[in-house]
Amino acid sequence: MISVVILGAGNVATHLYKAFKASDNVVIKQWYNRHLERIRSYSNEVDISDDISQLVEADVYIIAVSDDAIAPLSEQLPFENRFVVHTSGSVSAYDLDKKNRRGVFYPLQTFSKAAKVDFSQVPICLETLRKTDYMPLKRLAICISDITKRVNSDQRAALHLAAVFVNNFTNQLYRVAHEITESQGAEFDLLKPLILETAQKVQDHSPFMSQTGPAKRKDKKTIKKHLKLLDNAQHKEIYKLLTASIQHTHGR
Amino acid sequence: MISVVILGAGNVATHLYKAFKASDNVVIKQWYNRHLERIRSYSNEVDISDDISQLVEADVYIIAVSDDAIAPLSEQLPFENRFVVHTSGSVSAYDLDKKNRRGVFYPLQTFSKAAKVDFSQVPICLETLRKTDYMPLKRLAICISDITKRVNSDQRAALHLAAVFVNNFTNQLYRVAHEITESQGAEFDLLKPLILETAQKVQDHSPFMSQTGPAKRKDKKTIKKHLKLLDNAQHKEIYKLLTASIQHTHGR
Repeated sequence: MISVVILGAGNVATHLYKAFKASDNVVIKQWYNRHLERIRSYSNEVDISDDISQLVEADVYIIAVSDDAIAPLSEQLPFENRFVVHTSGSVSAYDLDKKNRRGVFYPLQTFSKAAKVDFSQVPICLETLRKTDYMPLKRLAICISDITKRVNSDQRAALHLAAVFVNNFTNQLYRVAHEITESQGAEFDLLKPLILETAQKVQDHSPFMSQTGPAKRKDKKTIKKHLKLLDNAQHKEIYKLLTASIQHTHGR
Repeated sequence: MISVVILGAGNVATHLYKAFKASDNVVIKQWYNRHLERIRSYSNEVDISDDISQLVEADVYIIAVSDDAIAPLSEQLPFENRFVVHTSGSVSAYDLDKKNRRGVFYPLQTFSKAAKVDFSQVPICLETLRKTDYMPLKRLAICISDITKRVNSDQRAALHLAAVFVNNFTNQLYRVAHEITESQGAEFDLLKPLILETAQKVQDHSPFMSQTGPAKRKDKKTIKKHLKLLDNAQHKEIYKLLTASIQHTHGR
C-alpha cells in the first residue's frame, strides 16, 4: 500500500484523485488545497485541508498546481526529507525546494473538468533526483496506468513541447477547418470521421508513412486553388508554412 | 438494385469497389482500368476491362481517378446522356464532359492501400447538375454509408480545403512532434494517447471549447521556453504562427 497526499485542486489534481481513489493499492491520506471550497464536495471520502501546517505523513506528496505555484508551494511545506513530486511537463524537478527528496510525476494527457479519463491509458513520465526514489514512484504510477516511462529532464521537456504540437496546435487546425467550413455553410461535422481516422492512422504507422495530399504530391494546381479560396491572411500563412514543411519532409 | 461501373484502380476506386461489393443493393456491372494488371486479381468476382469502347450499361458510372485524369477520361466515354460522377473533392462537376448527365460522389475520408475502411462511417458528399439525378445518387450512397450529404460546389471546395487542415497538416504536426521527441531520445509513442484524445474531444465539443495550453493561457514563460528548445527554424515558425492563431481565436 502506498500513501499519498495530493496538493492542488485543478484538473490534473482532480483526475489523479479519482484514479488513486479507484486503486486498491493507493491510500489518499489527505487532499490539500488553498481554497477549501474547491474540494469540499469530497470531504466525506477523504481528509481535506486548507492548512499547510497540518499536512499528514505520506509516502509521496503530489503537487498538482499551476507551473508558477509549484516552487513557492514546495517552499511552504512544513517538513523535510520527505518525497515530493510535481506533475508538470515543463518545470524542472530542481524547482522543488531542496529540503525534500524531489521528483516528477507527469501524466502526458489533456485533462478537462468534464471529460472522463481512462487513466490506464495515460502515459506517466517519471523522474527522480535520487535513484532510490525511482522504484517507489514507479510502484505508485503502475497502480493507475499501464504506461509508465522513466524520462530525463530533456526528454520530458521535448515531450511537453511535442504535446503542444499534437494537442493545442492540432486542435487549432480543427478550429481553422471549422471556420473554413462555416464560411461556406458546410458542416464541420462531416470532417469528424476524418479527424478520428487521421489520429487513428498514426497509432500503427509513422506520421511520415501516413502522409498524403496535395503538398506531398506536389500538386501545384490544387495548392493554388486552395490558396485562392483562403481569404483569411493568417489561414493562408498556415497553409503555406505547413505545405512547405510537408514538402521539406518529403523532398521537394 | 442499382448498377454501377467503376473507372479507375486507385485507393478510392478499390475501397469503393469493396464497399459496393459488400452491399446487397448494388451490382457492380464492370470495373474498368487503363492497366488491367491493377485489377486482374478481382477478375473472378467482377467483369474487368481495359477497353473503354466496351463499357457496359449501368445506372451510374463512377470515375475514381486522379484529378487531372477526370476530364480526359470523361471525354473518352463512348456513350451519351448516361449518369457519370467523379469522386474528387476539388474538381468541378462541370469538368466532366457535358455529353453525359453529371455529378459528384465525394467520400470525405483518407484512403490508403493497407488500412481497412468502415465505409458506413465515411461521409459521402453528393452533387448533381440535374435535380432528377440526385435521388438515384443518394440511393446509391446510402447503400454504403450512414452519412450522406448534399453539398454545392463551394461547400465541397471548403470541405476539401478544410480536410487538408485536419488531415495532411495535422499529420505534419505529428511528424514535427516525432522529430522533436526523437531529437532528445524520447518516445513518440508516449504521445499517441494524447493524439487520440485530441481527436476524440472534438467529436463532442467544438475546437474552440476544446482548446487548452500555453498559447490560450497566454503563458509567456512556457512559450519562451518552448521557442528556446526548438532549434529547427521551420518548427519555430510553425510554433509562432499557430500560437498567434490560437491567441487570435481566444482574444489576446
